[in-house]
Amino acid sequence: MHMKLIYLVCIFALMMTAQAEEVPLKTMKNVVLIIGDGMDDHQITIARNYLKGVQGRLNLDEMSVRSSVQVLTVDENSPTKPVYVADSANSATSMATGYVTSRGRIATSARADADLQTIVELAHNAGFKTGLVTTSSVTDATPASFVAHINIRACESPQTMNFERRGVLIDCSKDQRANGGLGSISEQIAASDLDVVLGGGREHFDMKAEASEETVEEMASASGFTVLHSKKALSNVEAAERLLGLFADSHLPTKLYGEAGRVAEKPEPSLLNSVHWSLGDVELPASMRCVDNPEYGETPSIKLMTSKALDHLSYDNETGFFLMVESASIDKQSHVRNACGSIGELDQLDETLATVLEFAKTHPETLVMVTADHGQAAQLVPNESLFSLMGFPVYTPGQLVRIKMPDGGDMAVNYATNSIFAEEHTGVAVPLHANELGRPLIKTLMTQPEIFEVTREFLGL
Amino acid sequence: MHMKLIYLVCIFALMMTAQAEEVPLKTMKNVVLIIGDGMDDHQITIARNYLKGVQGRLNLDEMSVRSSVQVLTVDENSPTKPVYVADSANSATSMATGYVTSRGRIATSARADADLQTIVELAHNAGFKTGLVTTSSVTDATPASFVAHINIRACESPQTMNFERRGVLIDCSKDQRANGGLGSISEQIAASDLDVVLGGGREHFDMKAEASEETVEEMASASGFTVLHSKKALSNVEAAERLLGLFADSHLPTKLYGEAGRVAEKPEPSLLNSVHWSLGDVELPASMRCVDNPEYGETPSIKLMTSKALDHLSYDNETGFFLMVESASIDKQSHVRNACGSIGELDQLDETLATVLEFAKTHPETLVMVTADHGQAAQLVPNESLFSLMGFPVYTPGQLVRIKMPDGGDMAVNYATNSIFAEEHTGVAVPLHANELGRPLIKTLMTQPEIFEVTREFLGL
Repeated sequence: MHMKLIYLVCIFALMMTAQAEEVPLKTMKNVVLIIGDGMDDHQITIARNYLKGVQGRLNLDEMSVRSSVQVLTVDENSPTKPVYVADSANSATSMATGYVTSRGRIATSARADADLQTIVELAHNAGFKTGLVTTSSVTDATPASFVAHINIRACESPQTMNFERRGVLIDCSKDQRANGGLGSISEQIAASDLDVVLGGGREHFDMKAEASEETVEEMASASGFTVLHSKKALSNVEAAERLLGLFADSHLPTKLYGEAGRVAEKPEPSLLNSVHWSLGDVELPASMRCVDNPEYGETPSIKLMTSKALDHLSYDNETGFFLMVESASIDKQSHVRNACGSIGELDQLDETLATVLEFAKTHPETLVMVTADHGQAAQLVPNESLFSLMGFPVYTPGQLVRIKMPDGGDMAVNYATNSIFAEEHTGVAVPLHANELGRPLIKTLMTQPEIFEVTREFLGL
Repeated sequence: MHMKLIYLVCIFALMMTAQAEEVPLKTMKNVVLIIGDGMDDHQITIARNYLKGVQGRLNLDEMSVRSSVQVLTVDENSPTKPVYVADSANSATSMATGYVTSRGRIATSARADADLQTIVELAHNAGFKTGLVTTSSVTDATPASFVAHINIRACESPQTMNFERRGVLIDCSKDQRANGGLGSISEQIAASDLDVVLGGGREHFDMKAEASEETVEEMASASGFTVLHSKKALSNVEAAERLLGLFADSHLPTKLYGEAGRVAEKPEPSLLNSVHWSLGDVELPASMRCVDNPEYGETPSIKLMTSKALDHLSYDNETGFFLMVESASIDKQSHVRNACGSIGELDQLDETLATVLEFAKTHPETLVMVTADHGQAAQLVPNESLFSLMGFPVYTPGQLVRIKMPDGGDMAVNYATNSIFAEEHTGVAVPLHANELGRPLIKTLMTQPEIFEVTREFLGL
């Protein structure tokens, strides 16, 4: 009995202590959501092997929470019917709005085409600052889904609201301002309440806005953005200003690429092999190094953009902020079968994560999540086939990159989802990593709309 | 200052209470390690979509710990040099022994060919019971690596210790008993201290042991195993006996297969498409249902085998046990491009997990881990290409299964790592799920040898 008494006295005493020592200061609450576009487990393993070695660890491997996220998509015409593979527009919409939509849609609902409120809008309305950082055009699907509402992702600028592309009609005319709409994605960004937007896509701002003498960029300036075009300008800008940084016409260059610009190539079987698969031999693509992309130095890294975004968003801010950071070219380089490009981009993401985790140390109410929007085609396959001793020519029907690794071996990456100029996405569930603050909120299996819910709950929206 | 004093008094009082109330009863400590062979995130997503729907949850999704495991392999001739894709022999050896080895090896070291002590041997020596359950031959690479020591996985029986297969010499003569070795894998199992071994592979026991008038099965009986050949015999056996169950000549049949025995097929482009990729059209394989495999009912399910194994291992046991359960045909069916086969096998694994978690409720010191040994070729790809509106014929260069889903849509699975009769493994990091007991032991990124370490630590070996 006396033990129970000791417990009760202790609990009371501890409660009093806690109350006495609690400092009722308002703490800024922040969420940083880092999206590796196409960054599934294959991409991470490939990059980890190259960057850190097979026993090495990326910064994201050190995060305390590890979950898996089911990617959800529905059919445009039957919005209750699942589609098993997403694009970046619908998957970013899930994370930005909490709603599942159809491929190609930017924060609008399938079939009904209703605008879906985004976490950026919710956060702004509640007094939080908001920011988007990306290595793609800022008008590209992932960042766009956090701020704009439009039925087709390709409607990035006033000139692309109604056009034909490779025989397909892209029609967003309903969303033109003349028709009472919000305009193209670039115009919606220019008119938005975002505090920081950094990335590429200057070409979409460098033209007259719809029915206007002003360019979209001038529109953005008029609505309060300081517009930046260079790494130097970004480095020198004052923390007080709202920023729109457009550091390339289109997407930003990657950090690495394949030696001599090489990407995946088709194995070359001998003529005899066309008679029967077990005959003849095959020449695999020669292995190659990943080398620095000389264009990369001219534009800011994701790390620099994110660091600047954190400065700006935390400046004179007692409420907090929401920041989405996208490493876009893991996906883009996988589409074009450039394994080195994807590795360099994932390296950038991981460096950026270190900066964000450093910020979270001094701003302890910062929830950091790292995830992907969908899977990609790249597969880490045997450099020496499991069947190599059998004497057959063994080779992928797709295209192969063999990378010379820092430790001396070769790592083989296979791209074999398509026979045309670009690879497909895949429907695999994607990783979600979070820091300790995510633990009470994140289950071991999530769906993408639940990432929106976690953000909302954490920020108290 | 007085607050610090209260803390100290409290901590002291709590320590005393804990000591006073501790009950020094010995509780059986158990580890159940479930291995889905080839069960990477693609396989899980494909099976989840089919079995539970895109928003559904498998039993493994409900487990409280979710980690990712880096698969490690080394080169046979340069054992410090990494190889980026494993086979089941070396990856099971990692989990069974804590050592990284080269492809094809069963609990032996690369180049030096030293026998590596397995968790089964360690556990047995410490008084734990031990068991292996699998849907493959019990002599196949995964189960074999927990109990046998041999340089080549193909040396499953006395007749296959030195032979030529498809032009490759398989030479395990050094391990023949005449040469002072432990004999073939089936002979090593027959002579082992295992308490329960259930699976297929009767053909490897149904022949004379090396230099003996006894069959390997008779050898097993003589060394104390009750040998079972049927589901009925398994259902009726007494819990006190040591069991060797051989329920098929080779591997056990899968629960599901493709309608009319169909597996993945090549898309058929029109002749015009051979002129240029953008011309002509393509006929994709017709979608099909997954149907029950009529052979499945004749043999015990993994669930039944595991349930029986748990009964036997926990019978009259105060120390505890180690049980490895393998769902082997996720991998085997992926090699032969049979998505339905892999789905049915993953269904079996997930049903079995429910049984194991039920057991863990009444035996609370039971650590349950579910993982894979390596990745596999199957990729969940768009049924309707991301590029379908462009008017090109878009199709995989590999082979495709389109499955009619219970909810009415079609799900497409691509196999495109090889042009020969079988697909390759992949090098992707694989999932690891565990129950709450795993939380203090399992990091968000592990390596496979660390699964051995976790088991050893949990059992106090």
